Amino acid sequence: MVSADRITVAIDAMGGDHAPAEIVAGALATAAEIDVAVRLYGRVEDIMAHVPGGTLPAGVEVVDCREVIAMDDEPAAAVRRMKDASVVRAAQAVRDGEAEAMISAGNTGAAMAAALLRMGRIRGISRPAIAVPVPVPGSHPQILIDAGATVDAAPEWLVQFARMGRVYARVRFGIDEPAIGLLSNGEEEGKGDTLRKTVFELLRKEPGFVGNVEGSDLMRPGRADVFVTDGFTGNIALKSIESALRSLATLVFTTLDSTEEAREASTVILPLLLDAAQAYDPDLTGGAVLLGVKGVCVISHGSSTAPAVVSAARVARECVTAGVVQQLRETVTDAG
Amino acid sequence: MVSADRITVAIDAMGGDHAPAEIVAGALATAAEIDVAVRLYGRVEDIMAHVPGGTLPAGVEVVDCREVIAMDDEPAAAVRRMKDASVVRAAQAVRDGEAEAMISAGNTGAAMAAALLRMGRIRGISRPAIAVPVPVPGSHPQILIDAGATVDAAPEWLVQFARMGRVYARVRFGIDEPAIGLLSNGEEEGKGDTLRKTVFELLRKEPGFVGNVEGSDLMRPGRADVFVTDGFTGNIALKSIESALRSLATLVFTTLDSTEEAREASTVILPLLLDAAQAYDPDLTGGAVLLGVKGVCVISHGSSTAPAVVSAARVARECVTAGVVQQLRETVTDAG
Repeated sequence: MVSADRITVAIDAMGGDHAPAEIVAGALATAAEIDVAVRLYGRVEDIMAHVPGGTLPAGVEVVDCREVIAMDDEPAAAVRRMKDASVVRAAQAVRDGEAEAMISAGNTGAAMAAALLRMGRIRGISRPAIAVPVPVPGSHPQILIDAGATVDAAPEWLVQFARMGRVYARVRFGIDEPAIGLLSNGEEEGKGDTLRKTVFELLRKEPGFVGNVEGSDLMRPGRADVFVTDGFTGNIALKSIESALRSLATLVFTTLDSTEEAREASTVILPLLLDAAQAYDPDLTGGAVLLGVKGVCVISHGSSTAPAVVSAARVARECVTAGVVQQLRETVTDAG
Repeated sequence: MVSADRITVAIDAMGGDHAPAEIVAGALATAAEIDVAVRLYGRVEDIMAHVPGGTLPAGVEVVDCREVIAMDDEPAAAVRRMKDASVVRAAQAVRDGEAEAMISAGNTGAAMAAALLRMGRIRGISRPAIAVPVPVPGSHPQILIDAGATVDAAPEWLVQFARMGRVYARVRFGIDEPAIGLLSNGEEEGKGDTLRKTVFELLRKEPGFVGNVEGSDLMRPGRADVFVTDGFTGNIALKSIESALRSLATLVFTTLDSTEEAREASTVILPLLLDAAQAYDPDLTGGAVLLGVKGVCVISHGSSTAPAVVSAARVARECVTAGVVQQLRETVTDAG
């Protein structure tokens, strides 16, 4: 079913640990499963090698571009130098109105730089920020912002992140009045490093500000819907969480396989656990979004497989139809 | 059995969410179960109310002191003002040679301030740091340093933390040549905020330095034995890990109790899981240690129960018998 307002996403086919195979598979699945048209950017021969039967289905186009930015390329320099890189062309497509959103699972810095350089920043936003949904089983996710875009952040930028996070929590998860917390090393006022103390004073005047929140408030409902931090700290928090989840999950699976009796019992337990654990699956909660640029840019994780691409496309569609960029523009202008 | 070199630990009976009941119970268990004498600091009537039969067993003394620093007191000011506070008197006991180590589960800032003011800093150490063992199932723990003592850190201080972490990893976990990683937002050289980039250059010359490590390297063996960071970031990493473990553990237990069949299967699985999950139990891995002061100071978590106190006493004993403070002194002097 094709609706009148079907959007088009520009997908960087060459970015990610499993590119182009999984990205192409995800793009095809996107066109087949959700009402989104796809433009795939990358080397046409590499892309077509992963299209079953060698014929593109309806709703999928390939745009040939010859350069590829690797995971270890220096992002900004690579984006400036490689004007025909898949991720750069995808960003350009959004700027030129050929697509409503871009998706990349490649070098995050390059995706950011491409989005910044090609789309430009929203007026009033000094630096972009990555918003990531942190899963909270049984509740809506929390938004961690910035999860890695801007590592040396000025206090005012964190205030902008808070505003953007608030808009995003509203649009993505329908939270009417999102509670904004400043990620710090204690919840009492006065906790935090110099940056946090300055930001705390600035955030006082912001609607929804609930004060300092801690790492221990992540993944449990109640304290805050949006966790504001700089990109360095946000990256550490997010990866520490991933690490802990992986460690405990490994321990659980090892235990379920540790004795004959356990293996028998696990025939009941394992399917239930795998089902419940979907709450944590980044392929299902959807990718990170770069906020602050004049277009929708979804950053999927490096190990993205086809379902992650479909999920990213869903997020892209949500952001486009909800008018996230427009709402960010208005909010930031309102706040002065 | 009492050995000739039995050490004495000074325990702050009034600190912690379950003080004094659990702290006193832990102190009594320490004297009974491990070869450590105990001096309990706090209000004598509050302590004695939790001593079964009202008679102190051998190896346990109570030192009456009347002031108590609360969890939300401003640490440095409280320590200066309340000279008769239990945590201050415990630190003083170490300085005066009445005990070889102190333990507190109370206000962490106050325990630090008391240790700093009463014991003083090791020459050559600018700021103390908290070293926390991060559990790695199937391997020795990793040392996270600083986990929260010094939030606005100068680059040189992180180099001192690295040196202290290396000594501590050697002494506590018998790692001959501990690998030192700088916690950053990517493993490539050049990643990190301004602080990290400066520290990276300084650490180059340090023995055992393996470069940047990420949050995702925590809790898995291989990359580094010591994770060096500032106290702000360390706190966020540690609490994010705790949060993730709690979230997933809750989900697992809920699932095991979700259906009749699951409950039946869990009679096999649950004991195995609880046994395996002890790898993560802070009551068993032992408390955090404040490094850089002229005495052993073990900081137990705020929710410490009696077993956590016993565990902290074990850590204190290990640190004393291994001569951690002396070894730190020598290393720091050697390094110039």
